[in-house]
Amino acid sequence: MLIRSFVPAHITAFFVPRFHDDPLKAGSLGAGVNLEKGVNVFVSVETEVLERHIHVAFNGEPVKREEAVISYSVAEEIVPAGFTGEIEIWQYFDFPNGYGFGNSAGGALGTALALSYKLGGTWLRAAQVAHKHEVLNRGGLGDVVAQLAGGMEVRVKAGGPGIGLVDNLFFEGYKVLVVPLGRLPTREVLDGEVVKVIEAEGSKALEKLLAEPTPERMMVLAREFAEKTGLLSGELLELARELDGVLKNPSSMIMLGKGLFALVRESEVESTRALLGDLEVSYDIVEIYDGKPRVERWFEGEAK
Amino acid sequence: MLIRSFVPAHITAFFVPRFHDDPLKAGSLGAGVNLEKGVNVFVSVETEVLERHIHVAFNGEPVKREEAVISYSVAEEIVPAGFTGEIEIWQYFDFPNGYGFGNSAGGALGTALALSYKLGGTWLRAAQVAHKHEVLNRGGLGDVVAQLAGGMEVRVKAGGPGIGLVDNLFFEGYKVLVVPLGRLPTREVLDGEVVKVIEAEGSKALEKLLAEPTPERMMVLAREFAEKTGLLSGELLELARELDGVLKNPSSMIMLGKGLFALVRESEVESTRALLGDLEVSYDIVEIYDGKPRVERWFEGEAK
Repeated sequence: MLIRSFVPAHITAFFVPRFHDDPLKAGSLGAGVNLEKGVNVFVSVETEVLERHIHVAFNGEPVKREEAVISYSVAEEIVPAGFTGEIEIWQYFDFPNGYGFGNSAGGALGTALALSYKLGGTWLRAAQVAHKHEVLNRGGLGDVVAQLAGGMEVRVKAGGPGIGLVDNLFFEGYKVLVVPLGRLPTREVLDGEVVKVIEAEGSKALEKLLAEPTPERMMVLAREFAEKTGLLSGELLELARELDGVLKNPSSMIMLGKGLFALVRESEVESTRALLGDLEVSYDIVEIYDGKPRVERWFEGEAK
Repeated sequence: MLIRSFVPAHITAFFVPRFHDDPLKAGSLGAGVNLEKGVNVFVSVETEVLERHIHVAFNGEPVKREEAVISYSVAEEIVPAGFTGEIEIWQYFDFPNGYGFGNSAGGALGTALALSYKLGGTWLRAAQVAHKHEVLNRGGLGDVVAQLAGGMEVRVKAGGPGIGLVDNLFFEGYKVLVVPLGRLPTREVLDGEVVKVIEAEGSKALEKLLAEPTPERMMVLAREFAEKTGLLSGELLELARELDGVLKNPSSMIMLGKGLFALVRESEVESTRALLGDLEVSYDIVEIYDGKPRVERWFEGEAK
């Protein structure tokens, strides 16, 4: 029996980290957007083996425990202690790892949901396990709760599932342009001195967004945040300015990745494509995903 | 400009009311299921008039303020004080009012979401306004948060949106049989002496469900709750027993309506139809709705 889960990619527009010794109370405030592309997880469970084996693969390639600590930890916690059998967890990522698309949270949450669907549990418990190991292994602070909320989300109270609180903006007619250019390791940024500035600027941005909760305002505030924290600078900032020339709303930086994102209307797609084609930059234009993550039995192919 | 929202019908399986002077802290514990049918709300806003007018219609028929207090109250709160113009709120119900399908909450939430989509606001604020007027006017306690969660839901912490906490069960292959036979006014039941028994039995059911969180267990516990509280008795109980003869999981009572519901697998549909046909009882077999409510601009027809 094969279970499939889907968790949307999540881009953070701005944020305030909230550290806490209890990982369920750790989290972030901020805002962001969920995409129709993201992480697909396929889980197979074979109980004819007498030993307990758990295997994780990324994009079809088996990965060692130390390269997938979060997913292995999630699986170890959700698979009951007395379980014997072979569990395979296949994670497929639409975006590259480390580029700020919430892959680690998506893999953790997708794994937790698929295993719980098969082995027992609830959505909330699965999500809490995913969040916990994300936080403990410093994969991220707010992606899991944001991905559970879908759409354009605003984290108004920090914390994991059941503790944090996520609101949603109304939006209409937007797709999301993503320009992923490289990695920016979350933990390096969150260890640096910039954290204090992030906290101050992120808090201001959140307050302003809640006073005028619209997608357009979110982008203005995201850009202010990105520039004032100094995270958006140099070539990336130059590219953002180029994009501003063809888009009504400001582009901003993917938090945390070396990349940009922007809200794009249908009428702006052509000029955006033209600009990025001229600049020879790779990009994608993706729909916003406005639902809960999905989990279901997967019937396709011989693995049925 | 016409806005359309959809809120699923919600059937409560068992519950524990939690009253509180602050309507956002009032709510319920319990479990239930959301359906693909429910309430569609269409909202039109015309700003060419200089006076402020709000009109509500149920199933195409204008209703007076006193017959739609919840919806009018929601609209009055969400439409800004200085707004002038003509607002029409058309609510269409797939199930009859007062039968236990969460129509009043669905109308309130659908109205709040559609008005906020057009006039400004967020999901959370809209949902809180809907919950508040549901509670103040005793339409219900837990429907709004349950409808926001979708799927098979378990209310694990009572309260309105942002305060209460709703978990979800994993489920597979079930549709929902509904047999709506008549009204059972919520407020009469909640005023009676049965409330103490409901609280005791509902709390026990919730505890047991959380120890074994499956749809099958939910139905066993729902039936125990319905019988032990004395709410399910007489002809309705007889009909439930007839249904038990053709279904693997026990049927139970719609809380609060004079009606039954049950989980039905595809393989059980034919025998269920045969039985209910023989008994000359009207029924429906409906898919489970597993998403968030929807709200969007409505482009169809001349109202574009």
